[in-house]
Amino acid sequence: MSLDCLQTPCLLLDKQKLLNNINRLNKQLTRFNVTSRPHLKTLKSVDAARYMLGDLSAPCTVSTLQEARQFAQAGCKDITYAVGISEHKLPEILDLQNQGVTLHIIMDSFEQAQFVHAFCRENDCQLSCLIEIDCDGKRAGIKPDDPQLIAIAKILQSAGLFSGILTHAGGAYDCRSLDEIRAMAQQEQAAVRDAASKLQRHQISCDVISVGSTPTALLGEGFDQVTEVRAGVYASMDLVMADLGVCQPEDIALSVLTRVIGHNKEKNWLILDAGWMALSRDLGLAPQQNGYGRVCDETGDVLPGLYVNSANQEHGIVALPEGLDLSHFTIGTLLRILPNHACATAAQHAGYQVISDDEMDYWPRFGGW
Amino acid sequence: MSLDCLQTPCLLLDKQKLLNNINRLNKQLTRFNVTSRPHLKTLKSVDAARYMLGDLSAPCTVSTLQEARQFAQAGCKDITYAVGISEHKLPEILDLQNQGVTLHIIMDSFEQAQFVHAFCRENDCQLSCLIEIDCDGKRAGIKPDDPQLIAIAKILQSAGLFSGILTHAGGAYDCRSLDEIRAMAQQEQAAVRDAASKLQRHQISCDVISVGSTPTALLGEGFDQVTEVRAGVYASMDLVMADLGVCQPEDIALSVLTRVIGHNKEKNWLILDAGWMALSRDLGLAPQQNGYGRVCDETGDVLPGLYVNSANQEHGIVALPEGLDLSHFTIGTLLRILPNHACATAAQHAGYQVISDDEMDYWPRFGGW
Repeated sequence: MSLDCLQTPCLLLDKQKLLNNINRLNKQLTRFNVTSRPHLKTLKSVDAARYMLGDLSAPCTVSTLQEARQFAQAGCKDITYAVGISEHKLPEILDLQNQGVTLHIIMDSFEQAQFVHAFCRENDCQLSCLIEIDCDGKRAGIKPDDPQLIAIAKILQSAGLFSGILTHAGGAYDCRSLDEIRAMAQQEQAAVRDAASKLQRHQISCDVISVGSTPTALLGEGFDQVTEVRAGVYASMDLVMADLGVCQPEDIALSVLTRVIGHNKEKNWLILDAGWMALSRDLGLAPQQNGYGRVCDETGDVLPGLYVNSANQEHGIVALPEGLDLSHFTIGTLLRILPNHACATAAQHAGYQVISDDEMDYWPRFGGW
Repeated sequence: MSLDCLQTPCLLLDKQKLLNNINRLNKQLTRFNVTSRPHLKTLKSVDAARYMLGDLSAPCTVSTLQEARQFAQAGCKDITYAVGISEHKLPEILDLQNQGVTLHIIMDSFEQAQFVHAFCRENDCQLSCLIEIDCDGKRAGIKPDDPQLIAIAKILQSAGLFSGILTHAGGAYDCRSLDEIRAMAQQEQAAVRDAASKLQRHQISCDVISVGSTPTALLGEGFDQVTEVRAGVYASMDLVMADLGVCQPEDIALSVLTRVIGHNKEKNWLILDAGWMALSRDLGLAPQQNGYGRVCDETGDVLPGLYVNSANQEHGIVALPEGLDLSHFTIGTLLRILPNHACATAAQHAGYQVISDDEMDYWPRFGGW
């Protein structure tokens, strides 16, 4: 299939690679008999969500109210909004719930539990609340042994608002080997089991025990007591995942199609029409490792040693290694750039040119809050 | 004016600061009697362009065909598309020209001049072509003493397609003092004067001699022979410009409104609902200098020593300095984050909440190619 009809830069999604990646996680979670609650924040596409969820009414995760609204409208019924709640967002959440969606919210402070409790009393409603557990010291959440855990759960439980606990092993991105990721998966699970058992000692039981990150979802084992696993970037994959060893570069379903628009003969540089506006400013795990992305030919085969070394808003620069001649890349040549971070690169585009062996399709995506 | 009615995160644009910044450049260019051709790539907003251009039919600059289309539709008639041309974009450019827009295109190789020449012959049309001059070795363009300069100009001139030359002092972003920026402005002007005089020796005269970058536009002197100056980020300014010394942080018209959604008590961290999705991944000039942006209170006053130290997709983390207590920033507190790079931060949003003393307005913006 020729991509020559496409205006550049644009975002390509390889459908077969997407399906293979989705299938890989599904197999893994089926093996451990744990529910998948895919995070839809990466692709933000109803078309992609159909493949990730199988049935749109299946459990899913979002990171913005905009995602909650869009996916609810498409048929999602069981949505976790996995960012700490603020009081100002509660009216919109109730609104969505009144449309027939169960929208689980998360919190990690007594203050949040108090205002949710007060809001539910004032509005004569119930919201499903999860307490965020900190399993790695990377961001939000409270440690399993923080006495606040019991205090928060109690105020929620007293009003019938408590559903369970949730954690996210963002620390998996700092791991430097598959064994470290496996250990992080165990640490993640241990943190929620620890929190659940502390709550149990106070006669508070968790219906939901939620863990997840793509590395720990794919490499985790056991999942005892865990009720669900959240992963997002697994569907497209990216260079961060490849650099962690979680996938191979060939598994990456997402790329930016670009054309050579110039040569700097003195420096042996290609100038591309994909700058950071198309690629994002994300430099991935080790800023010098892949530059703004690895370069593939038009068919998607990685060109060894070629990276987008620097980027302006609408210009990408590829410094050719010695011995490789600019004449191999005449002006107009199509190339594909693999993204460092799929969430960030996809966010720069309004949709996906979906490619498969025999057809081309377009899937819109959305942004905003 | 209270910002409490706004859903967070969202993008604020302070109208008075915007007007002050626009006025500052206009005064500078009037002083040197040189035309302003503002770059509209930063704000990508027709409403903002009205203030930047005064009259929408005035000269402007764009970085994508999408900008060219949108601003042409709004009434722009004299547009420079300041990214090296590829053959595949020519039909769209002709289409715009047929709608009554003069769309200047740029190139830096004989190959490009050849295909533009062939396209114009085949389509019995004329396009206005500028040759891009490299004044700082940072990106694209050819050096003034490159013999290709004459060859390219000749093939264009033979078909009546040659309009002049253009350069961009991207190297100004590497300057470490105002004197270095002033010297870069002289270097930028010298490069085009040198190229123009070499062309003149071959009886090729330049109607257009175009230079520009916000630092060199604001700090340049003389502008002899220069016919126009392109600057873009000058209208909003950002922390990169403040760090270069081109403006003060108080001049920055753009900020991201965010709410505190959590506290990490153990680490004395605020968790914000603005992560890199709202702030962009751009770390500015010196990655550790401002983190993902400097923190202001709700009114826009800079809070000394407070930065968004790290960011996830929808979470920003502010590490409070010792002695500053989390209780000063209760959950729900509104804060504003100044952007490292206005072009990158604005690109993450669909529009601006425009604030002034007595009113609030909304200006949509667009993206895409």
